[in-house]
Amino acid sequence: MTEATPVIRLRKNEERRLKAGHLWIYANEIDTRQTPLKELPAGAACVVEDSRGKPLGRALLSPHSLIAARVYSRDVKQELSRSFFKKRIEQALALRETLFSDPCYRLIYGEADGLPGLVVDRFNDVLVVQTGSGAMEAHLDVIVSALDAVLSPSHIIAKNEAAAREIEGMDRYTRALKGELLDNVSLTENGAHFTAPLAEGQKTGWFYDHRAARQKVAPLAKGARVLDVFSYCGGWGVQAALAGAESVTCVDASEAAIEYVHRNAELNGVGDKVGSIQGDAFAAMKQLIADGEKYDLVILDPPAFVKRKKDFKNGLAGYHAINELAMRLVKPGGYLVSASCSMHMPASRLLDVIHSSARHIDRSIQIIGYEGQGPDHPVHPAIAETAYLKSWICRVNFSY
Amino acid sequence: MTEATPVIRLRKNEERRLKAGHLWIYANEIDTRQTPLKELPAGAACVVEDSRGKPLGRALLSPHSLIAARVYSRDVKQELSRSFFKKRIEQALALRETLFSDPCYRLIYGEADGLPGLVVDRFNDVLVVQTGSGAMEAHLDVIVSALDAVLSPSHIIAKNEAAAREIEGMDRYTRALKGELLDNVSLTENGAHFTAPLAEGQKTGWFYDHRAARQKVAPLAKGARVLDVFSYCGGWGVQAALAGAESVTCVDASEAAIEYVHRNAELNGVGDKVGSIQGDAFAAMKQLIADGEKYDLVILDPPAFVKRKKDFKNGLAGYHAINELAMRLVKPGGYLVSASCSMHMPASRLLDVIHSSARHIDRSIQIIGYEGQGPDHPVHPAIAETAYLKSWICRVNFSY
Repeated sequence: MTEATPVIRLRKNEERRLKAGHLWIYANEIDTRQTPLKELPAGAACVVEDSRGKPLGRALLSPHSLIAARVYSRDVKQELSRSFFKKRIEQALALRETLFSDPCYRLIYGEADGLPGLVVDRFNDVLVVQTGSGAMEAHLDVIVSALDAVLSPSHIIAKNEAAAREIEGMDRYTRALKGELLDNVSLTENGAHFTAPLAEGQKTGWFYDHRAARQKVAPLAKGARVLDVFSYCGGWGVQAALAGAESVTCVDASEAAIEYVHRNAELNGVGDKVGSIQGDAFAAMKQLIADGEKYDLVILDPPAFVKRKKDFKNGLAGYHAINELAMRLVKPGGYLVSASCSMHMPASRLLDVIHSSARHIDRSIQIIGYEGQGPDHPVHPAIAETAYLKSWICRVNFSY
Repeated sequence: MTEATPVIRLRKNEERRLKAGHLWIYANEIDTRQTPLKELPAGAACVVEDSRGKPLGRALLSPHSLIAARVYSRDVKQELSRSFFKKRIEQALALRETLFSDPCYRLIYGEADGLPGLVVDRFNDVLVVQTGSGAMEAHLDVIVSALDAVLSPSHIIAKNEAAAREIEGMDRYTRALKGELLDNVSLTENGAHFTAPLAEGQKTGWFYDHRAARQKVAPLAKGARVLDVFSYCGGWGVQAALAGAESVTCVDASEAAIEYVHRNAELNGVGDKVGSIQGDAFAAMKQLIADGEKYDLVILDPPAFVKRKKDFKNGLAGYHAINELAMRLVKPGGYLVSASCSMHMPASRLLDVIHSSARHIDRSIQIIGYEGQGPDHPVHPAIAETAYLKSWICRVNFSY
């Protein structure tokens, strides 16, 4: 009922970012004298007003978080109903169905799909849901109902294990919301088939975000000796083998990930092409250099070295070190794919790292491609935080 | 003979940019008291020294240009011999042969392929050469000989019509260097076949630089009503039709270009899908809006609105105007591809233009892809001028 809808009023001029398209409202932007934020119900929908009381839209309340509210509609009467979620899900689905022939993709990417704080990955009949805010989590029942209405999946699993949840006072859990809990999920990406660990895996089990980059890199793998560093379950390596690599070596610290690498290689009939090294990536690459190994294609897809802004300097040093190691392993005229998933690491800075690493060991590079996150991870043009992934594809030559 | 090789000496600290990988030397960076630049022979190879006389490499001299010399080798003994050109051509060729199944691509992209001032496009057996500096032009004979040795093409055509040539005091001409002059060339791009005008066409006749973007956009064309604005010979439009578009309308001011659009549509068996409007793009789009037309996919690939830095403000206004017109023609949930080939228009600024155009007409957008120039136009990481092309792929929705 509209009468009962809580209201938050912004301080003077704090509506500007929202008018430019952003969806977040920080706690310090709210006029807490007019609308005492802490007294408002967490997870409720509220009306957002500018400092003069003009309504701007509806938001989901997280009164105890830094991001105190996230706008979900510019329509001030829009309830968080099943039909609202259905409509947003259908709109997101239409994009993915246009783009992909297999039902394997990120179905909902939070803010960029108009559903702040909600992520849903689709693995054929299985949906894996992540809620990034307590406010969105409070609506999980209606979300599940809407997902069920649109897609009738066999399973809906909540995988809420992100460490950041504890900051919002949310517990970490994995739970089946429809069907039983699964150990793993099956998926198709760029025509390759994969099984990925669900309960024990990273994030939702799979990283669809590199799909476009993997497709772009495939032609470079033909006949190549390939090194896939931080391979996880073999997303890059197995696709390189399928694209005609002579051999692929996957490096990952996780024993479980390496098991999945071999399982996925077998699944695609390239088990004989794919080898592995289980261990620390830095140590493994140093050993390969010491052994005089060289590759036609080295893929470097590290975890985020810069998790928070204040980690930037240390993270940068890590990117430098690992890119230089990788470059030493590339044959002259071969290729380096260097990725970063750190939101705080701009693409231009990553390129600086690659280029200065090259100069440092007297190599010259040609940049032959760039990819961001795939199209099922759309970027919201007003919300920089929705863009995080970057991959540079370089050819590495001896210096001219 | 090394004794006779001219020398240019740099002013103090002016070697820094070269050490960072750049290849250009501006006239004002040269110590003309030590080495009187204007007295040196145009087109000759010279040794470049830092201010203390330490040799840094070899460069091609253009004593009367702003860019007075361009480094072509870090080896101070490297002559501009046929074997030098052969080696660089073979290195460039190796990249293209790895990437493309058809012999249709930019074979040499100047500085980024270690051959400053030289561009060569390949259309099967035909090579079209452009020289961007008088210095490189002076070596055209040995270049033709090297190209012939590596590729044995049926034709080598010099297409030197760029207006900028007059600044360097070079005349504009089109001339056959091997075989006879041709009216047009044939090529294959992303599996589509094209004929493009050579003598009367723009640049070398074709723009291979959008190949990767066109491939990325193809899935969006399936079943779509497509508008291709600034279509030239139908590179985008015909590929969209081949990807399954319901209909395609190509808009171009040039009657000759529109003729090629229809010729290329026929060539690919999609003549019935492809229509055209010959005329000014702004006027045509305004008329389409007045007529209430809507498209699932609008492609906007304008000529450079910002040709020189000082044109930025006017150019920006042009991009704003045309993006807003284009966006008005997109159905809700449809797609806009917005490109700029202006070196002076950064990708981030183009995105600002698209986003603010969207806000201005109350649309929200999702960025679902980005492409730079294709991999046969590699970017030199130290030479910003080698990166010029950008395309944003956006989904256009009614504002949430």
